[in-house]
Amino acid sequence: MKFGLFGSAQAKRGGPDVDSAKGYRDWLEYNTEAEALGFHSTFAVEHHFTGFGQVSATVNLLTYLAAQTSTIRLGTAVMVLPWHNPVLLAEQVATLDLLSGGRFDFGVGKGYRFNEFKGFRIPMEEAEARFEESLKIMTKSWTEDEPWTYEGEFWSYEDVVVEPPTAQQPHPPFWMGAGSPASIESVAERGYNMLVDQFAPVDTTIGRVNTFRDCVEARGRIFNPYEVGVARGLYVAKDAADRDAAIERRIAARARVDNLAQRPDGGNKSSIMSYDDSVETTAEAAMFGTVDEIVAKIQRFHDAGVRYMLFSDGGTGIEGLRTFSKEIMPHFADEEDDVAVARAAE
Amino acid sequence: MKFGLFGSAQAKRGGPDVDSAKGYRDWLEYNTEAEALGFHSTFAVEHHFTGFGQVSATVNLLTYLAAQTSTIRLGTAVMVLPWHNPVLLAEQVATLDLLSGGRFDFGVGKGYRFNEFKGFRIPMEEAEARFEESLKIMTKSWTEDEPWTYEGEFWSYEDVVVEPPTAQQPHPPFWMGAGSPASIESVAERGYNMLVDQFAPVDTTIGRVNTFRDCVEARGRIFNPYEVGVARGLYVAKDAADRDAAIERRIAARARVDNLAQRPDGGNKSSIMSYDDSVETTAEAAMFGTVDEIVAKIQRFHDAGVRYMLFSDGGTGIEGLRTFSKEIMPHFADEEDDVAVARAAE
Repeated sequence: MKFGLFGSAQAKRGGPDVDSAKGYRDWLEYNTEAEALGFHSTFAVEHHFTGFGQVSATVNLLTYLAAQTSTIRLGTAVMVLPWHNPVLLAEQVATLDLLSGGRFDFGVGKGYRFNEFKGFRIPMEEAEARFEESLKIMTKSWTEDEPWTYEGEFWSYEDVVVEPPTAQQPHPPFWMGAGSPASIESVAERGYNMLVDQFAPVDTTIGRVNTFRDCVEARGRIFNPYEVGVARGLYVAKDAADRDAAIERRIAARARVDNLAQRPDGGNKSSIMSYDDSVETTAEAAMFGTVDEIVAKIQRFHDAGVRYMLFSDGGTGIEGLRTFSKEIMPHFADEEDDVAVARAAE
Repeated sequence: MKFGLFGSAQAKRGGPDVDSAKGYRDWLEYNTEAEALGFHSTFAVEHHFTGFGQVSATVNLLTYLAAQTSTIRLGTAVMVLPWHNPVLLAEQVATLDLLSGGRFDFGVGKGYRFNEFKGFRIPMEEAEARFEESLKIMTKSWTEDEPWTYEGEFWSYEDVVVEPPTAQQPHPPFWMGAGSPASIESVAERGYNMLVDQFAPVDTTIGRVNTFRDCVEARGRIFNPYEVGVARGLYVAKDAADRDAAIERRIAARARVDNLAQRPDGGNKSSIMSYDDSVETTAEAAMFGTVDEIVAKIQRFHDAGVRYMLFSDGGTGIEGLRTFSKEIMPHFADEEDDVAVARAAE
């Protein structure tokens, strides 16, 4: 199996006494060590105007990390396309992809936080159309070698050829989150990779992976399980009490983040926000537990055909990753299995 | 004196046989060695749709260089503000400034190449107004700690606080190119630093620096000569024949670049394009010459009070910088002089 990471760096605003760069440096160190520990990828969020310093210029932060690393894949989860001029973003992404030797994974989304739409003065109702137009323009930017002109609803360009080229051809892989059967089918239809959210119960998640495989195979393609990343919170607990306290903290933290996404009228019904956040559901979905418990939880996904999991830090930080690397990864280092997967995907 | 660099990395588009990243890697190596050779700064251009791969995502490329260096200042010369959402650019710049420990120098411009305005479908007539609005919004983004709302002509934001903060306070220094007395006065009025273009004859350039000093002092501030960067082409020639051939090549190359800026009606009268490009003028303005000749040329600027020069590579590459560092820099390493300058500026 392959294991990656996702999360956010945090740079606090403050007076002269606050070292705002510390949160970024910590995140960079965490990820450079994660590379050495055998983690395959790291995905960073993009958020704006949070008031608590979530990373905003995600491609830039990943570019700095690219210079400090050599194998770990660098992803966004997700870039919100409606905020960006798609040609400028295509240039930024291509620059990172070139500089990193083709290590960029492009997780994209249409946005869901009300306060970000308000901040950028973009109507939430335009999210879908802006997202689709951006995808079209970015793909065109990377694949057209001759000057082109585009007349769109939100963006227009005349007689342009976009530089630099990407390292990965025809362009970096797109990753999209999906939950409902229709959205899963849409990801398969586009030929993109899929991210499955961290909050869904295990059986729900496995069902989604199966739906994706069916959709891919129904289109005559061979399913590559590395093209689905199952996200989970990770907390490598000392014992049961340590685990239970961490789960309580996780539920409280999630409520805070959900508030950022909510519209004043409570009208945000995104599937990412619709799970119950009871202790039972959270304990079952999250990779919070002792080493043995986590091994058993991953085994359940492995048995269902999942081969790629992405972890957000639930609080055990780099120490948790060290333990994971040493005591959990070896259980899932079945090379024959992975070689077979890779061969099937060729 | 302080010596910096300016120029562009180049990433060629092409088929599978073209290593598009090579131009970027070469530029990065050139600049990391330049740091070791004692160069103070490096400024990179921003251009789009050139067809020959000039750097487009300048802040990203500088962010990668930031991770590979520790003292060299990282500048843009210049970012063209009308292309960018000013809040996104403020976030990107702040991220670089934070990650680099406050090494960012923000050269800004309003754009002058017709094909870029056409490409982005932005009327050239809006350049000035877009530039001014962007400066206002970016400065606000970096200096306001409480949520703000802005209703502009081109951009509007509601209830935002922009993150992360910059490392330099209140924000990275702005640098602006200027030629005419009115534009020089405007740079001084804003409190920005000034870039002087590489093509103007020596006396013209010295006159501009003097005008800037007068404007700064007329406002009751103390003039700091490190806040003016005089740009020049640099070619460390073996002998007179080598120098003369390089000057011929420089004139030919400049004609090619000028064509990119020109409007179909020939109506681009920017001062940067109005010098004659005769051998005599070019030979006098450019730092093309043997070691002794270049020392004499720099001495002329030094005698006139110039303390900061920026060089673009005229063809001698890193070898030219090595010679410059070893044989030319020591002539201008007058510490007492520089300490006095720094003290006067406090």
